[in-house]
Amino acid sequence: MSVDTANRMQSLRTQLRQAGARAMLVSHRPNIFYLTHFTGDNAALLVTPGKAVLFTDPRFTTQARQECGRGVQIVITRKPLLQELGDCLGARGATGRVLFEEDKLSVAQLRQARRAAGSGWAWKGFRGVVEGIREVKDAGELAHMREAARLGSAVMEHAIGMVRAGITEQDLAAEIEYQMRKRGAEGPSFETIVASGERAALPHGRATSKRLREKELVVLDLGVILRGYCSDLTRTVHVGRASAEVRRWYNAVLEAQGAARRAVVAGVEASQVDEAARSVLRREALERYFIHSTGHGLGLEVHERPSLGRGQKALLKAGSVVTIEPGVYLPGRGGIRIEDDVLVLEAGSETLTSVPRELMEL
Amino acid sequence: MSVDTANRMQSLRTQLRQAGARAMLVSHRPNIFYLTHFTGDNAALLVTPGKAVLFTDPRFTTQARQECGRGVQIVITRKPLLQELGDCLGARGATGRVLFEEDKLSVAQLRQARRAAGSGWAWKGFRGVVEGIREVKDAGELAHMREAARLGSAVMEHAIGMVRAGITEQDLAAEIEYQMRKRGAEGPSFETIVASGERAALPHGRATSKRLREKELVVLDLGVILRGYCSDLTRTVHVGRASAEVRRWYNAVLEAQGAARRAVVAGVEASQVDEAARSVLRREALERYFIHSTGHGLGLEVHERPSLGRGQKALLKAGSVVTIEPGVYLPGRGGIRIEDDVLVLEAGSETLTSVPRELMEL
Repeated sequence: MSVDTANRMQSLRTQLRQAGARAMLVSHRPNIFYLTHFTGDNAALLVTPGKAVLFTDPRFTTQARQECGRGVQIVITRKPLLQELGDCLGARGATGRVLFEEDKLSVAQLRQARRAAGSGWAWKGFRGVVEGIREVKDAGELAHMREAARLGSAVMEHAIGMVRAGITEQDLAAEIEYQMRKRGAEGPSFETIVASGERAALPHGRATSKRLREKELVVLDLGVILRGYCSDLTRTVHVGRASAEVRRWYNAVLEAQGAARRAVVAGVEASQVDEAARSVLRREALERYFIHSTGHGLGLEVHERPSLGRGQKALLKAGSVVTIEPGVYLPGRGGIRIEDDVLVLEAGSETLTSVPRELMEL
Repeated sequence: MSVDTANRMQSLRTQLRQAGARAMLVSHRPNIFYLTHFTGDNAALLVTPGKAVLFTDPRFTTQARQECGRGVQIVITRKPLLQELGDCLGARGATGRVLFEEDKLSVAQLRQARRAAGSGWAWKGFRGVVEGIREVKDAGELAHMREAARLGSAVMEHAIGMVRAGITEQDLAAEIEYQMRKRGAEGPSFETIVASGERAALPHGRATSKRLREKELVVLDLGVILRGYCSDLTRTVHVGRASAEVRRWYNAVLEAQGAARRAVVAGVEASQVDEAARSVLRREALERYFIHSTGHGLGLEVHERPSLGRGQKALLKAGSVVTIEPGVYLPGRGGIRIEDDVLVLEAGSETLTSVPRELMEL
């Protein structure tokens, strides 16, 4: 086991002990990767105070041995993984409390594991234990995230250079994802959004065969996965010269985004970062067009803790990476969103993505 | 609601009635798409004998209205969707049995919905009801699947044309996914596999920065998503002239694949298709290198019913699409897999993908 996974496993075991549990079932794939470096898409992990056992199927025999360190025991099985894992627990003869990820394990999987383990084990749901550890990135993770942010930024610059009337949303998205791959990313961290004209009013508009036209806003939202870690970056550009009204909207979003970025610091309540963006848009009478929260954590998943929305009481932690992405969406008119990835520091923050934010009229 | 979703909803309601249930919670995203055409990534669907209600958040307001037909009522909420859905059930005052997808709903989601709905509702887990309906494709779906298979085949031909010593696996994967997008696909249906040399012995080898070399096998496994529907296609090629041994392995897999394809017909047991491939490899003393099953269903998901493996008793149904993909994996030496997508017919089958299968020495 590498030093980083050993440290993470140790944090987890501390929590295991505090919860008075003898074992923990980890079923969520990013959590399994975090704890073992295994990337296969069929696995379950059982962690006890003394052991870590990875269950997977024969397709991944070689891969599991290559990816997991020596501290992880590998069990290859053709049985349903949760049944095999339950059998293993049952065979140990020990009894006690076993934790499971209640927001990630299906009702059927729990039943399967529980039946196989027998009545000696008491199953207790929890959530967010591994996610909580993941919230604060270690040095190796931060290096990956900086690199992912840099790569995403380079791809965005390239994409902006291709924006012109006549190109289809789809072709732009294809070029964006090609550039990610060419530059070494495993792929996009979500389906690349290219939404132009009225379609820019859809916060999650898929790229279509629609062509960009003069006098349109174009929202470009892209993220890469690099060594397992995600970036997430949005810019909104204008094809041709923007009207005074569009310019006013744009500058309001830009100001809101800056205010939210400046609000980021270890110890601040998540909702306050959201309020920093929201209050600017409120003042500009645009708050009702801001229909999502200001941001979210970023790491092995493109959406993780913390959530930067109204009513979110969690305090930001140094070493956490969050997106800051206020936007306005005007049905029938278009939309504007500006998003960067921001590392939370003890004293302030550092923006990891680096693409100019001023309105570009292309 | 369009004719196709209306038909599907009707099939579901028939099963609802047979199960003596008053309502059904559908939470699995491909199932929601199948029943409503909604593509957003945060939704829950409640189906009752008289109504279908889609729950989603404000980001998807416009999109939900555009995508769902008139037969679907849309509820936009900022609350957790399962809680809102439970509240709705509770408010109806009615009582009875409500079904949920036990293999797709998390333990925490079930608790949330159950609490909100109150004690009048009895929750009963089921699995595969919508998946069972999805197994037999309707005419519109088959048109999409043919198109997805054609597009995947064209991309494979293009990729094979690029195979040469010196190119990296990653660059080949980037080009493959670019071609998918350029030709109109929404994206890949799974992370494109390019695995060369020893790495070809990993059935799910990620593309790396490794360069293809002379005298290596290269496994190319790619799939597209087109209008929501998946294709899945593998070819194995050789860089330079193959040895007699490699040729023997290749021809064994080719023969196994042909035997399995010829075994496909409505009414045959799934395990028999697997056995058709397996028996060829057994005769060639290669069975122990065939470490997965022969294939799987294909549709809105890249892995769906039926599974074509040992012990699978299900009978193939006309209108179902399956992959046929035997392979051998020789640790330290490389691997060979040949995969096509096959439509099950009353009298035989039709192979939807169309790339030559003979060994190509490039």
